[in-house]
Amino acid sequence: MAPAIDVRKTATRLSDGRQLIYFDTTAQLGRGAPAPPDRRRLPTAPADCALRYDPLLAAWVMYAAHRQDRSYRPAAADCPLCPSAGGRQTEIPASDYEVVVFENRYPALTASRGPAARVGELLATRPSAGRCEVICFTSDHDASFADLGRDRVGLVTEALIDRTAELSALPGVAQVYCFENRGAEIGVTQPHPHGQIYAYPFVTPRTERMLRSGREYARRTGRNLFDDVVAAERAGGTRLVRTGRHWLAFVPHAARWPYELHCYPLRRVPDLASLRPAERAELADFQLDLLGRFRRLFATPAPYVCGWHQAPARTGRRGFALHLELFTLRRGDDKLKYLAGSESGMDAFANDIVPERAAERLRKLG
Amino acid sequence: MAPAIDVRKTATRLSDGRQLIYFDTTAQLGRGAPAPPDRRRLPTAPADCALRYDPLLAAWVMYAAHRQDRSYRPAAADCPLCPSAGGRQTEIPASDYEVVVFENRYPALTASRGPAARVGELLATRPSAGRCEVICFTSDHDASFADLGRDRVGLVTEALIDRTAELSALPGVAQVYCFENRGAEIGVTQPHPHGQIYAYPFVTPRTERMLRSGREYARRTGRNLFDDVVAAERAGGTRLVRTGRHWLAFVPHAARWPYELHCYPLRRVPDLASLRPAERAELADFQLDLLGRFRRLFATPAPYVCGWHQAPARTGRRGFALHLELFTLRRGDDKLKYLAGSESGMDAFANDIVPERAAERLRKLG
Repeated sequence: MAPAIDVRKTATRLSDGRQLIYFDTTAQLGRGAPAPPDRRRLPTAPADCALRYDPLLAAWVMYAAHRQDRSYRPAAADCPLCPSAGGRQTEIPASDYEVVVFENRYPALTASRGPAARVGELLATRPSAGRCEVICFTSDHDASFADLGRDRVGLVTEALIDRTAELSALPGVAQVYCFENRGAEIGVTQPHPHGQIYAYPFVTPRTERMLRSGREYARRTGRNLFDDVVAAERAGGTRLVRTGRHWLAFVPHAARWPYELHCYPLRRVPDLASLRPAERAELADFQLDLLGRFRRLFATPAPYVCGWHQAPARTGRRGFALHLELFTLRRGDDKLKYLAGSESGMDAFANDIVPERAAERLRKLG
Repeated sequence: MAPAIDVRKTATRLSDGRQLIYFDTTAQLGRGAPAPPDRRRLPTAPADCALRYDPLLAAWVMYAAHRQDRSYRPAAADCPLCPSAGGRQTEIPASDYEVVVFENRYPALTASRGPAARVGELLATRPSAGRCEVICFTSDHDASFADLGRDRVGLVTEALIDRTAELSALPGVAQVYCFENRGAEIGVTQPHPHGQIYAYPFVTPRTERMLRSGREYARRTGRNLFDDVVAAERAGGTRLVRTGRHWLAFVPHAARWPYELHCYPLRRVPDLASLRPAERAELADFQLDLLGRFRRLFATPAPYVCGWHQAPARTGRRGFALHLELFTLRRGDDKLKYLAGSESGMDAFANDIVPERAAERLRKLG
């Protein structure tokens, strides 16, 4: 699938060996070869990541001890995601950029070495595989995703498609997750507008459950579960927030979060790369609009998590439906939904806001 | 199983019809019949709870719109969990109490009426069943669980056993979960030392997963998964924090949280009611000790969730192992572990603190 916009990609390495890639739409930034060097002489990036298996919950947990010391909400003047300028060297050596992606300095996942887990081992540990990348949406420290222009949103999507393809091809990678955490209330350590890309060495528990539900539904009905959920939300209408020619956004029937939106293309596709140019173009409108509504929900912009659910890289691709999930844990101007005993201890969610009421509010904010 | 201590139980009703039960070890509090009345004339408690099914994640979500308006961290002088005194009427009409349990005024679960879900319905809604209760551990507003005496901890356990049995017998109840949330960082709305009891109308997703893992393990090995996990932690020893004659406490091999402790009786039992007097007695020591260590982890007491995992009320009881799970989301004096994109979006946990190091720290705090 050809990209909808012309993207110029320039790859380089930071001084500790991490990869950094500029994604530009113009030659204006003077991105020639070689790209500007990283003058910081960083020590080699740590790689003490490991995976451990929880036999009761049947899930892998990621360990990354070096992350404990990562910087936490630095002052704007020390922002590592701004361009390098005036002698100050940041993570991005260039003096300006459009969209840039680089390997996280404090990754939860790395390609590391070590003995493999033994077959049937009860308390299994294995070396990590995979990679964590950071994607900066703009060089403007004070902006947010909702401030981006349509073209920039399109460029971000092209960058995510590129990264999903490259990371999916890495040894041991099972699934690529592109997401943005926004807001201090959910623990964002860097306020500069950015997202993250996790290349997991396992299919995540959430995706595993969706795949299992889909298989069981297909066996019982002969139909695709995602298709039927989207059709039911579309037909019901009470939870719809925006409908387009190619996309649909709704508060799901059984939303877990005070305000939660799911956004599906009307044509089921497994991943971002499968979207056609017209679908990509309308997607940018949807993203800007939906994030704008979230910004206007409360007296101050709502903190949020916004993540792309794509089919796994190798198995379980058939029948999966690409979709975006956007939610906030804020339930009022000064009230948060906390994950306490029932949610954290039993995975049983209680929600104070009825989805139809949440949808009504979000519709009015359009 | 006879209780290890002599408990006097006095049940009454609050003015809106909710049940309240005093658990006393002495007659000193003058608990006669009738118990002191609630003079508040509260309106009838709301019951607009409902359950909705998420077909993708195969899980029920609880809705309770009335909870949105519940009081949030009232001033100590307005604490609804203190005894009634000096003309101020609280949730507890008596002028003093040892342990008291009452139905939550803002429950996430109630016995409510409405049409049942249709078989095979894709976006199913059904009336709620179940109940949410509050348990106050002491009338001392400023205490915490770790301050209780051994006898009081024993009385709390007897009260939980009583409530588990009564709630398990209610129509539609599938599982009873007794837990304590502690600390503002996890959203505790009332600082008065108290726990909660949720009688769910479904087996929780967490417990479902444990049961499935246990079934698959038994099929593969002919053995009990819980037994083998406890035996492996005991034999390995590197993550043990405390061992007793009847109980074992360890940081699990694949802990999700910065500091997490699991506490199992060495004799596998399905629930609290099955514990023998000697096991109940040692349990009190363990609880006070482990919570004391959590209090000393950081400059200020660690916020925590502490929950009893008991076998479901009706199905899946065979092979389940009662255990306590205690964890904090704090990872440093001023750092929290947030559930952001990977955890909230994909259920994929990353932990910065290696379990052996967490166990070492917790051992030293004994």
